[in-house]
Amino acid sequence: MSALAETLSDVLPETNSSNYNPGPAAKFLPMGSGDRLLTNEELEAALRSVGAARYHILHPFHQRMNAGELTRAQMQAWALNRYCYQAVIPRKDALILAQSDDPAFHREWRKHIVDHDGDDAGSEGAIRRWIKLAEGVSFDPEMVISTRYALPATRYAVVSYIDLVTKHSLLVAVASSLTEMFSEAAIAQRVPAMLARYDYITEETLTYFTPRLTQAPRDADFALAYVCTNADTPQKQADAVNALIAKCDMLWAMLDALEYAYVDPANTPPGAFCPEDLQAMRRARIMITPASRPYLPDHIQLRFDALYGRSILLAPEKDALAG
Amino acid sequence: MSALAETLSDVLPETNSSNYNPGPAAKFLPMGSGDRLLTNEELEAALRSVGAARYHILHPFHQRMNAGELTRAQMQAWALNRYCYQAVIPRKDALILAQSDDPAFHREWRKHIVDHDGDDAGSEGAIRRWIKLAEGVSFDPEMVISTRYALPATRYAVVSYIDLVTKHSLLVAVASSLTEMFSEAAIAQRVPAMLARYDYITEETLTYFTPRLTQAPRDADFALAYVCTNADTPQKQADAVNALIAKCDMLWAMLDALEYAYVDPANTPPGAFCPEDLQAMRRARIMITPASRPYLPDHIQLRFDALYGRSILLAPEKDALAG
Repeated sequence: MSALAETLSDVLPETNSSNYNPGPAAKFLPMGSGDRLLTNEELEAALRSVGAARYHILHPFHQRMNAGELTRAQMQAWALNRYCYQAVIPRKDALILAQSDDPAFHREWRKHIVDHDGDDAGSEGAIRRWIKLAEGVSFDPEMVISTRYALPATRYAVVSYIDLVTKHSLLVAVASSLTEMFSEAAIAQRVPAMLARYDYITEETLTYFTPRLTQAPRDADFALAYVCTNADTPQKQADAVNALIAKCDMLWAMLDALEYAYVDPANTPPGAFCPEDLQAMRRARIMITPASRPYLPDHIQLRFDALYGRSILLAPEKDALAG
Repeated sequence: MSALAETLSDVLPETNSSNYNPGPAAKFLPMGSGDRLLTNEELEAALRSVGAARYHILHPFHQRMNAGELTRAQMQAWALNRYCYQAVIPRKDALILAQSDDPAFHREWRKHIVDHDGDDAGSEGAIRRWIKLAEGVSFDPEMVISTRYALPATRYAVVSYIDLVTKHSLLVAVASSLTEMFSEAAIAQRVPAMLARYDYITEETLTYFTPRLTQAPRDADFALAYVCTNADTPQKQADAVNALIAKCDMLWAMLDALEYAYVDPANTPPGAFCPEDLQAMRRARIMITPASRPYLPDHIQLRFDALYGRSILLAPEKDALAG
């Protein structure tokens, strides 16, 4: 691993190091455990404490969502961007399958892929259900599927998730899925909150979540057992905790980007989905007073184009999509 | 390319498509040019108009920087995060070298690597000069080099840059470097502004920028000539423009993340550099009035830990580093 941290090297110490280096995991391990091997109960408690401190349900964006404070456009932005993550999950899981040569592991892990892609026996799959959710918040499914209007930062996070499961051990890849340990509680909180606080959201809109209430704990149980069995050195135990921290960071960063672009300060980057009410919100920030002088708005440049022989106003591209 | 857009597929149409699809480049091509091959002058004008609209010098964070509005801690956060980008450049350029079997191209392009890594003839290289800049804003160089406290979003952007030059054509990889066409003007604006407006910044701090004033235009001239020669179909011309858009998106996203974490609303993600004055800024937001009721701060959870038999306050990890 190079000196440059990318996805994980900030949290995963050098794997070929002979010295125990827990990295950020240290804060989540039992006090005074030093470099001894943790019991399974201690390791599980450490993993759960990562979720309790850093799972994205704690992010201000999710807290606003559960409090009923998001506009429909902000909800659309969430559905649009989160789709990028949903859609990459079967690829991520296929890469995990490809790291193992154990048929029993394959049989168990391929359930992740089936759950997301659906099957011929009538399951439409989580990706299709997520598209329904996007439709439920009045978003054109084709636009969601194209992901063209997602935030660049969302796509970078997703690329880095693929990078994480490709460049590290199977143990790390499996441990990064352990956010599923926390999703049941998050869904149990989110679904009633959304139904109660957004009149356009119905149970039909939220069918994505129902099967996840049983699938996620089943998958998490298997992954946790795998991690407990295979993290057989103190370093590997720390690696597993760090992998979960890295995954939490990724989910957190996706919400940071959403909040920055659509809520506070609502600076949507050029080219990304920019609903009409956010455009109006930005226009409303402009105060005209007697002392006002004519300025060009932020990001707009007046420029003489010698090639075309005319003065032009150059503005970052914004795509106005009906809210 | 899959239906899922990652780094580039939002802006790069399917490369094996027989139909011309300019994607977002359409807005930057001469009006009415349809799918005809542009002249070199028109292609260069289109590329320059991307920079004029979307180069990161237009981002609010850079505008604040040039206006003298950033605190030293915000400047530190910028130096720390931008280091991740600087440090990956020689790897990115090595991957570009690896895509070509032309010794003449190699001889020219390896200058990028020498410029960043330095040589035995006395050039210390841009990466070393960037570390000096970080030291100039009172940052521990070891902490910068470790990149452990950089924003996850910064690392994801950098991973995606590597992904871009690895997964697409040499033409696309070369075109993505064309932001160097715009850096001379940006540096000419930034250096005097920083010297005038931040008393702790000296010419010594900013030695990073001086050689870039000649290196970047030299590299940009070569890359532009390469793109003009090798983008020999309307689709390839649009691909080149889209590659430059994608690169601008990446630089823009790095500043979005900085602004969100350290300026507005200054929600630093767990685990990232969090200087003391920002911690104080967040504390100052708490208003105590007669109507106040005791709440736990954002992200803090009170939880009974059955395993350890005690109530604990769980908080996202924050690393306080002296400013």
